[in-house]
Amino acid sequence: MNLLVVGSVALDSIETPAGKAERVLGGSAVYFSVAASYFTDVGLVAVIGRDFPEEHIGLLQQRKIDLRGLTRESGLTFHWKGRYNGDLNEAESLETQLNVFETFRPLIPPEYQAVSFVFLANIDPELQLAVLKQVKRPRLTICDTMNFWIQGKEDALRETIKQVDILIINEGEARLLSRQSNVIRAYRTIASLGPKIVVIKKGSHGALLFTPASVFSAPAYLLETVTDPTGAGDCFAGGFAGYLARVQQTSEEELRRAVIYGSVMASFNVEGFSLDRLRTLSGDEIEDRFMSFKQLTRF
Amino acid sequence: MNLLVVGSVALDSIETPAGKAERVLGGSAVYFSVAASYFTDVGLVAVIGRDFPEEHIGLLQQRKIDLRGLTRESGLTFHWKGRYNGDLNEAESLETQLNVFETFRPLIPPEYQAVSFVFLANIDPELQLAVLKQVKRPRLTICDTMNFWIQGKEDALRETIKQVDILIINEGEARLLSRQSNVIRAYRTIASLGPKIVVIKKGSHGALLFTPASVFSAPAYLLETVTDPTGAGDCFAGGFAGYLARVQQTSEEELRRAVIYGSVMASFNVEGFSLDRLRTLSGDEIEDRFMSFKQLTRF
Repeated sequence: MNLLVVGSVALDSIETPAGKAERVLGGSAVYFSVAASYFTDVGLVAVIGRDFPEEHIGLLQQRKIDLRGLTRESGLTFHWKGRYNGDLNEAESLETQLNVFETFRPLIPPEYQAVSFVFLANIDPELQLAVLKQVKRPRLTICDTMNFWIQGKEDALRETIKQVDILIINEGEARLLSRQSNVIRAYRTIASLGPKIVVIKKGSHGALLFTPASVFSAPAYLLETVTDPTGAGDCFAGGFAGYLARVQQTSEEELRRAVIYGSVMASFNVEGFSLDRLRTLSGDEIEDRFMSFKQLTRF
Repeated sequence: MNLLVVGSVALDSIETPAGKAERVLGGSAVYFSVAASYFTDVGLVAVIGRDFPEEHIGLLQQRKIDLRGLTRESGLTFHWKGRYNGDLNEAESLETQLNVFETFRPLIPPEYQAVSFVFLANIDPELQLAVLKQVKRPRLTICDTMNFWIQGKEDALRETIKQVDILIINEGEARLLSRQSNVIRAYRTIASLGPKIVVIKKGSHGALLFTPASVFSAPAYLLETVTDPTGAGDCFAGGFAGYLARVQQTSEEELRRAVIYGSVMASFNVEGFSLDRLRTLSGDEIEDRFMSFKQLTRF
């Protein structure tokens, strides 16, 4: 097992302009690990409840995701209900039932502790810190977060950020965390807090990769219909981290390619509800879309 | 003379987070022609008033812009007063005094009528149509417009659009004109109205070039400080059209390069108030920034 993710597994109820889905498979660790599974061996640490359907376990197994870190509790699975209106870049949360996720304390199985690549999905920064304490000098740690933690647990979040190599964050969150409205200055402030590599996601406007040496601007793939944006950020992270774990390199070149593979996985994911599109992907489709990104930006 | 622009010459009063400028040189035809003058010979058709300072004429002459189409009337020069608040992508208009621009009827000097490249800056679509009637089969016509005309003179605008080869428009305007929220569908609708090549500008998120054969996504240049966004769209059009007029080609390759040269000129322009940055540019600086766009997008 090459890449470890700690995050949420959820049952989501989602409404978008394209339709509705009730209690479908979701959660940051699920989207991440399925996306990353196209590039490398992934292990997942998360919690599910007694109501979690067996077929979802089957999907994760089919993607050869290592589930030794997935524990089942007697309560109900984390449930999120959300709606996207005109602006597909932002969800309106209608309901959040933490359920078994409320008392989740990530326990990293001993056989995972020497893993090389670690992704801390968007969970309570105190839990992210607890994970970092349990792993032994991973080669690369990547972390996501959100407004809720920036505003609610800034101290713990800063402690997490101090210890990770790469932060993946969206544009609004980067502004909030850095208190800078300009992205260059936002990067510089965040880098001073710890991570020297920062990916700033801009939804349908693409993503920016900042390293000490350069800036890379990646476009978003243009789609005529976005069915469901849920999980796009986690799939981006999954493609990004999965690719880096596969090539075992973090050169400028490979980081840039990783951003594109992240964008590729995010672009597929929004074509369907839940994991509908991602579960049926082929390696050829991924490479074809990678080439489409080349076509889209070449001059 | 290779490239003709018809548009406004203005005295602008501008307030941005970076400072203030009172009654400085502005107007779509000025920004466009100064930007384009770094690539090709430009002729300007516009009107000024009795108060228009001689030094501004001097600047245009220094850039070797052909002023035989610039007429001076006895009234006052078009005056615009605007302010940019947090969002530098959008200006708040505080005052618009049309003055001599109110009765402006563009008269194309006979020696301009066989020009190859024509840019219709953002003016009343009826005036744009009047220009198209006076030129003899130009090789390429490019047109800009804005919300005000889309909402106020849609019929005349549609007639103009029907006759031009390329429309340059911002994202919100493309949605308004096409009544489509998705950019791919917006392009398809606009193409069905006439222009088969459409550039959709996204401010600090870059620009998209749509042709029947492909889509090109160009990033915006990242600046730590934007001093004054006024004229960025016109400088984009100036670099774009100026480059095409220089290479005398509209292949996919050259159109893409033209979008980057447009982005280069826009990025320089916002570094200063009025034409402050553009008037002192060198060809080397332009080429260096073109290479920076390569660096920014290469993977």
